[in-house]
Amino acid sequence: MKILDGINNPQDLKKLDREILFDVAREIREEIINTVLKNGGHLASSLGVVDLTVSIHYVFNCPRDKIIWDVGHQSYAHKILTERKSRFSTIRTHGGLSGFPKISESRYDTFGAGHSSTSISAALGLAVARDLKNKNYKVVAVIGDGSMTGGLAFEGLQNAGHLKKDMLVILNDNEMFISKKVGAVAGYFAKLLTAGMARKFEEKVIKTVSRFRGLGSPFGKFVKRVKVMLFPGMLFEEMGFTYIGPVQGHDINNLVTILENLKNMRGPVLLHVITKKGKGYTPAEENPVKFHSVGKFDIGIGKTNENRTVSYTKVFSETLIKLAQIDDKIVAVTAAMPEGTGLDRFAKSFPDRYFDVGIAEGHAVTFAAAMAVADMRPVCAIYSTFMQRAIDNIIHDVALQNLPVVFVLDRAGLVGEDGGTHHGSFDLSYLNYIPNIVIMAPSNENELQHMLKTALNSNVPCVIRYPKDCCSSTALDKTLIILQIGKAKVLRYGNDICFLAIGNHVKTCLKAADLLENDNISASVVDMRFLKPLDFDTIRDEILIRTKKFVTIEENALIGGFGERVKAFLCNKGATVRCIGLPDKFIEHGNLEILRKKYGLTPENVIKKALEIL
Amino acid sequence: MKILDGINNPQDLKKLDREILFDVAREIREEIINTVLKNGGHLASSLGVVDLTVSIHYVFNCPRDKIIWDVGHQSYAHKILTERKSRFSTIRTHGGLSGFPKISESRYDTFGAGHSSTSISAALGLAVARDLKNKNYKVVAVIGDGSMTGGLAFEGLQNAGHLKKDMLVILNDNEMFISKKVGAVAGYFAKLLTAGMARKFEEKVIKTVSRFRGLGSPFGKFVKRVKVMLFPGMLFEEMGFTYIGPVQGHDINNLVTILENLKNMRGPVLLHVITKKGKGYTPAEENPVKFHSVGKFDIGIGKTNENRTVSYTKVFSETLIKLAQIDDKIVAVTAAMPEGTGLDRFAKSFPDRYFDVGIAEGHAVTFAAAMAVADMRPVCAIYSTFMQRAIDNIIHDVALQNLPVVFVLDRAGLVGEDGGTHHGSFDLSYLNYIPNIVIMAPSNENELQHMLKTALNSNVPCVIRYPKDCCSSTALDKTLIILQIGKAKVLRYGNDICFLAIGNHVKTCLKAADLLENDNISASVVDMRFLKPLDFDTIRDEILIRTKKFVTIEENALIGGFGERVKAFLCNKGATVRCIGLPDKFIEHGNLEILRKKYGLTPENVIKKALEIL
Repeated sequence: MKILDGINNPQDLKKLDREILFDVAREIREEIINTVLKNGGHLASSLGVVDLTVSIHYVFNCPRDKIIWDVGHQSYAHKILTERKSRFSTIRTHGGLSGFPKISESRYDTFGAGHSSTSISAALGLAVARDLKNKNYKVVAVIGDGSMTGGLAFEGLQNAGHLKKDMLVILNDNEMFISKKVGAVAGYFAKLLTAGMARKFEEKVIKTVSRFRGLGSPFGKFVKRVKVMLFPGMLFEEMGFTYIGPVQGHDINNLVTILENLKNMRGPVLLHVITKKGKGYTPAEENPVKFHSVGKFDIGIGKTNENRTVSYTKVFSETLIKLAQIDDKIVAVTAAMPEGTGLDRFAKSFPDRYFDVGIAEGHAVTFAAAMAVADMRPVCAIYSTFMQRAIDNIIHDVALQNLPVVFVLDRAGLVGEDGGTHHGSFDLSYLNYIPNIVIMAPSNENELQHMLKTALNSNVPCVIRYPKDCCSSTALDKTLIILQIGKAKVLRYGNDICFLAIGNHVKTCLKAADLLENDNISASVVDMRFLKPLDFDTIRDEILIRTKKFVTIEENALIGGFGERVKAFLCNKGATVRCIGLPDKFIEHGNLEILRKKYGLTPENVIKKALEIL
Repeated sequence: MKILDGINNPQDLKKLDREILFDVAREIREEIINTVLKNGGHLASSLGVVDLTVSIHYVFNCPRDKIIWDVGHQSYAHKILTERKSRFSTIRTHGGLSGFPKISESRYDTFGAGHSSTSISAALGLAVARDLKNKNYKVVAVIGDGSMTGGLAFEGLQNAGHLKKDMLVILNDNEMFISKKVGAVAGYFAKLLTAGMARKFEEKVIKTVSRFRGLGSPFGKFVKRVKVMLFPGMLFEEMGFTYIGPVQGHDINNLVTILENLKNMRGPVLLHVITKKGKGYTPAEENPVKFHSVGKFDIGIGKTNENRTVSYTKVFSETLIKLAQIDDKIVAVTAAMPEGTGLDRFAKSFPDRYFDVGIAEGHAVTFAAAMAVADMRPVCAIYSTFMQRAIDNIIHDVALQNLPVVFVLDRAGLVGEDGGTHHGSFDLSYLNYIPNIVIMAPSNENELQHMLKTALNSNVPCVIRYPKDCCSSTALDKTLIILQIGKAKVLRYGNDICFLAIGNHVKTCLKAADLLENDNISASVVDMRFLKPLDFDTIRDEILIRTKKFVTIEENALIGGFGERVKAFLCNKGATVRCIGLPDKFIEHGNLEILRKKYGLTPENVIKKALEIL
């Protein structure tokens, strides 16, 4: 019988003796490892905060008190402890628990997340509302050192430091950013560590906490001045926070004592906690990057089941390296996603021409824009969903100045198990209206390599978007071709109907066209290649002379995307058009195949739409 | 004969004796004041940096060296000194000089701006490219204390502190943010001032500069530790910058000495300069907020020619106060634009329920989202063009969680003289594809007040967008009405053609319909009221039975906007639709009337489009 069997919610946890919490944490780790083994998920970060999570729920009173998990990929232990243990095995599966906090899933999830650096702003909003309503709940934000590099976190810190509301920000420093040496803040954290770790900080912290209460007095001011020299954390102190730390984040007994002490402190407090990513599972401790987000894996050997087929990411990575070998103007920028974007290999080949700017998408884009001004050819690779954070930088710094920056949006379209916060559902829509921009989507990996060459050869802002999927095993041409910008490619001609597709669903249409042949229906299939400029000439000159019936397909929101542009063009031409794409709602999480079937991104649905208008 | 007559470019300036620079600055101020008197413009900020600008151009070598002006509204003196003196009188007029730096306007403009906080990222990009190309130009960013509150500036600082490139960031601290006490950074700057100003800092700074070179040595490290206590600026030092200052920003002689000393320093350096907004023109010195951006004004009495007619901004402001008096859940958030959004009056009535978060749009939105979670009704008022910076926060924090935040986008559509960086050309497109959101645009001030009531009464995210313009003098209903969400209003019925309009161009259509009556052409006119949900029912049930000919009009980019949605809806219905809106390019600056005429946002063009399809 496990202790965890008796814990359904934080109240159950609070009934336990403090000494037992260590065992609870161990059982939670087992639960997490066993589930991620089956479902995949964010393993390393979730294991790293188990002790912290147990301590928080032991000390604070949820859901009355409000805990906000930045990014939210570390919230597995929180979910287990807050009435979701029995459903935990469903995490990340379609219809099951989300892999992130979600207001609609549980009253214990105060503020949903998925993207980083929002928690301080959210905590401040809750603290302000609390005081306006004369309530007295506690507000706690838990934010990683990586998320702290985002400008939004800084904006939140500085407004919180100004408004002086009672709130606790726990900086969960798992040294990920230190090991990668990304950004000055990482170096700053490293300094804090060397400064703080050398001393027996725990007792000191507890003593300090009691001393803080008198900081308004002349003596307090003196203490504060001395602190500048003796204590780390002045960056946060300067922002108006009381800084406490660093403290070890796996000693539950000590954490509970500290949190009890901090619970009733006034004003904004930052507690700096040091944790180890992957804690409790050796393979993840040793390789936290690999185990950050994993598919199903083999627990015994600690090996993730790596996919053997070629991904767009890999083709992008290899093509970029090839092109950079002959063009030393090419530089690459990523926002804390070297592995996910495939730029880790570029970094090895060209360390001086590679820039990981931290979780700072806005800066990544503006920084790239300036390099383009200085005659470099920056390639800025960021996931579709995260690029939502840099739209103004694309508009104001790149497009308005018509600078040749190449944006590579990986994870465009549905991403599967990560769900609503991570689907790349909107990029065609959020880019389409921006003047001067060329937008491409490859229909296979061979197209991708030519598009990258084309983009780098052009003298204007270009976007290439492609999905997370593996490719279709198209042979790669040895010589890279410069495509004609804005020119679609008619893949087959048919006179009954025309399928217009962009990106990965060209192959969906080809399959549909094949199947329709059995019914003696002949379909044209056009790989549009470019959303912008959209090739209206080819539609008019090569298709409208054959048929006025169209089905469009795209893995993007229908509103503002490809299909609507086609409809707008064909509106006055007596054509009949059916559009397939994502409906006007946030798409849930689930296996890609399930989601594509549900939302009609299949050959069967193309055929169905075709038959409706034939 | 003026000295300025002999100065066409920075080389001419550098030939002068240092003592004469004071007179050059005085003449530049006269030129600026006289021009803004006629053309309007950003007076106070431009006057504040004249001495700094003269000093920079005296010391650095432009265009070889790269100067980046953050926001860019302070670049008037820079323009006068860089081959644009003869055209300076055309500033902000259609076809004339831009009010902001613009790459396409001059080789002296390194990096265009208009939105804030981009300069450090841009400077870093130029510095990185310089080193990769083995060039040796200097890079200087000039950024205000307000812009320093933006998260993007922090992202730039931290990446620059990490990469350690040689670059100079000049913090132009005009105490605007201090006086407003916005954000912890403002408080921090205030502390720097009291710490620094108490001493005769100038000599100390010059001495310090020479001492810095040995900072790697053990003695240097000791000096640095002592600096923590004795010197201000540790926030920047912690970020990896060498901090120098504060220095007085109107003493050209001293500034030149300091800049000469800093010119060859290694690594990232931050020079903190104190200036006075409006310096040299007493009315602007006394009221810098009023003179931040002005229309034409009377130099003698220092009074701006205030417009007497009612603006949307004013109606919004008054309605919000009225509603907040009876609903204490209403809170208001702005990002450093209290006057522009009309929230300054709300702030006076409800100081505890008003939040100016600094130039931090992303935080403003996420902060508002959290207040909505805690059962408040936040109204977040931000200009259309600046909201481009918070799109992900709208998607990820508000819409995905379906929270009742009301976004009020002032300056939607064309803004006139501020031009391409400031036109609200895109909001309908960047919002349209976001699920769960209601988007409204009032056709007059009476509609606006009802829409605000409707939005605050709804339980979902709502956007209300309206232009800078004055209203049409529609009488205001005394009782506020809750509109049916997604319901259009047919203003007149006609059987020949139908005009569909959203927002301020409903009146354009009414006028066109009136004029067409003379030719016995009867037009329906529909005030769509809502872009989303778009009222397809009314179009189908009330209009399509009369006519299949449509003209749509909107003051927004045509791509992804209102007209395209209408076309997409009518595509399969045999209708003929012409859309009027902004073309797929960045719209230049110029008088609103000129621009609207040029881009066909006029009754005449509605009639022309109608006649084309009749």
